[in-house]
Order: sequence, then C-alpha cells, then structure tokens
Amino acid sequence: MKVYKIPEATVMRLSIYSRYLRQLMDEEKETISSGEIAIGVGVSSAQVRKDLAYFGEFGTRGVGYKVEELYGYLMKILGLDHRWNIIIIGAGKLGSAFALYQGFMDRGFTISAIMDVDEKIIGTELEGVKIEAMDVLEERVKARNITLGVITVPAFAAQEVTDQLVASGVKAILNFSPRVLKVPNEVILRNVDLSVNLEVLSFYLAFNR
Amino acid sequence: MKVYKIPEATVMRLSIYSRYLRQLMDEEKETISSGEIAIGVGVSSAQVRKDLAYFGEFGTRGVGYKVEELYGYLMKILGLDHRWNIIIIGAGKLGSAFALYQGFMDRGFTISAIMDVDEKIIGTELEGVKIEAMDVLEERVKARNITLGVITVPAFAAQEVTDQLVASGVKAILNFSPRVLKVPNEVILRNVDLSVNLEVLSFYLAFNR
Repeated sequence: MKVYKIPEATVMRLSIYSRYLRQLMDEEKETISSGEIAIGVGVSSAQVRKDLAYFGEFGTRGVGYKVEELYGYLMKILGLDHRWNIIIIGAGKLGSAFALYQGFMDRGFTISAIMDVDEKIIGTELEGVKIEAMDVLEERVKARNITLGVITVPAFAAQEVTDQLVASGVKAILNFSPRVLKVPNEVILRNVDLSVNLEVLSFYLAFNR
Repeated sequence: MKVYKIPEATVMRLSIYSRYLRQLMDEEKETISSGEIAIGVGVSSAQVRKDLAYFGEFGTRGVGYKVEELYGYLMKILGLDHRWNIIIIGAGKLGSAFALYQGFMDRGFTISAIMDVDEKIIGTELEGVKIEAMDVLEERVKARNITLGVITVPAFAAQEVTDQLVASGVKAILNFSPRVLKVPNEVILRNVDLSVNLEVLSFYLAFNR
C-alpha cells in the first residue's frame, strides 16, 4: 500500500470520522451510510466514500457500514490500536495548554515527559507529569519508549531542541514554533502554525468583501 | 475568480511562502526562483509554481520572481493588506497561549477583545487587553469592528459561544474546541483540533513500524 500517496487532508478526515463513529457507538447506533457520516461531520458523501476507498472495501451496498467495525478499521489505520508516548518540550502557556488538552488522552496518546529550561518551573507538575531539565531528555525518551515530540518553545530555541529530540531517537515531531525546522528524512515533522490558520480565514474573508 | 476552488493546502502554503519572502526582504535579496522558494520552505518547485498559478502569471521565465513584488501579491491574496480585529472567547491556558502567540501580530491581526465566564479573571489583562464578561460580547464586536472569533472554551460551551459570535456579526471563526460546530452558510468556520495533528503523525508512524 502506497501510504505516502494518501493526502494529509484524508488522514485528518479519517480522524474526524472515527470520532463521530465513537459518538455513534455511545448512542448504540449499529449501521450508518456514507451520507449520514457526511452530514454528521460536514463534508460531502462522495468525499467520505473517496477517503475510505484508499484503504479498500468497507461497507455493503444498500446497507452501509457497521459502525463498530468501521471505527475499529479507522483506529487501526490511524495507528491508534497502539499507545504512543509523547514528550513535550516547553512548559510555557502553549505547552501547558497542550498538556491539559483533553482531546487526545482517550485516543491513545500519553504524555510521558515534559521538559523546560526555566528553573522556576522545573520540579513542578503538569497533569501529574514532573517538569524536568533538558539534560535528562535522552534518558527519558529511551527509558519511556517515547516516539513523539511536541515542540512548544520560542522560535529561537526550536532547531536546537529538534536536534536533541532527533538525537535521542524521537521518530515524529509536532512543531508549534513559527520556525522552519530541519530534520533527517526518516523523522516525520508536522508544523502547526497557529497564525497560518487565521490567514486561511482572512483569505476567504478578503474574497467575500 | 473561483476562489473557493483553491485548495486550503495551497492557501496555507501561500502563507508560508510569504513569510519566507519577508525573511528574504530583510536579507535584501531582490529576485528568487521557484526552486529557491521550494528549498527554503521544503516543498517541490513544481508545487510552488502550481500554487502561484492559481492567481495568474507571476515572475519572468529565466529570471524568477521579484521578492518584494511577489510578497506584496501574496499578502494581498491572503487578505493581509488589511488589518483584522479578533475576539478570543475563553481566556484559559489555550486562549492565553493564543493571545500571547507572537506569530500573527505583524501579519495584520489585532486582538481587540477577550471574553471569559470566570469571575476570578474578568477584569485582569492579557497582552494589554482587558478580559471581559460575555454580556458585552455583541457591543464589543460591533464597536470594535471585529470580524474574526477564536473559540478556546471547553467543548460543552462551544456551540453556545458560536451562536453568540454569529449573532453579534462575526464573519469567520477559528475553533480550537474538540466539537463539531454548526454555523450559517455565510460564516466561515475552521477547526483546529490539536489531537488530529498528533494522529496524522501516528498514521505515518504506524505504517513505518
């Protein structure tokens, strides 16, 4: 399967579909059509079918999808049949907000370590995880089987932190700093620039003026 | 121009290209090729040309683009030749992190109002903006010409807050809460689910196991 050909937007929608299916499971709904999924999450039903078609044949014509089965498939596709350990670098406002964010705990992610350089907060706790100094980063990543790094440090420190994460063996990085980072090919990097999201809105607003 | 046919991923890249061009202007670079832009931001040069082609002919064959001119075009396309006033609803950790985020002030966005329901923080300031109670929301939106709303409240409160923003005349909403929101057709809604970003990483990691 040529997974790298799957558009990122599709992966993001799979994540959204799976949350919606989880909600339907709680409501004890057993089957669902692509049209109903489409309405539930706000995309077209053709889009739902196209997204699912990347991964083979799901569902039965005229009957639709079995909610629990499709949920299970999607969670497996998303790698969420597995737990992932996360390290957060930077326990300022954004790092704390991320650590306290409720949305991902029940999706298989565990915050296993939090690092900062500020001696005033080192030793304190966030969500039951102790904030530690950068010099134990590699030790924690290895001992706690951490694969995912989240960077919430100021832009000027972001590349140095990235290099340390890569050296310690982290395989994927979510970068919130507004800085273009360099990583080796085998490390997966994803940038979340909060202001880019605002600019997508201003783009559409500007053409509606 | 059928702007709604422009892929969102293209809009996000235009934002990234424009930041890179801004950086080059500071370095007093005058012209640049699509290949150089591509290397600078980490996409293919074909992608750069395709993204720019949506908006007409830029650049000269064999010479490339004039940095300052292309920057000006991109900022105009992104609606950033204009200032946008923002209201933030929810001054908890995520709302505060967003307000303190340095990345968007110099891109034309101004935080004009911040609201919360917590009486312990109402009356205090964030980035020089006073946190106010929800009952002045409509008054502030109208008086301060606010078009963009940012929702950083818990999921259970998100729809109610959205309805209030829409009723007050906000035209576009950036939603950080993990909740599918309903808005009228004429209001632009963009969801930023922090955990979806983690799941894009776990998706790629799962296929690399």
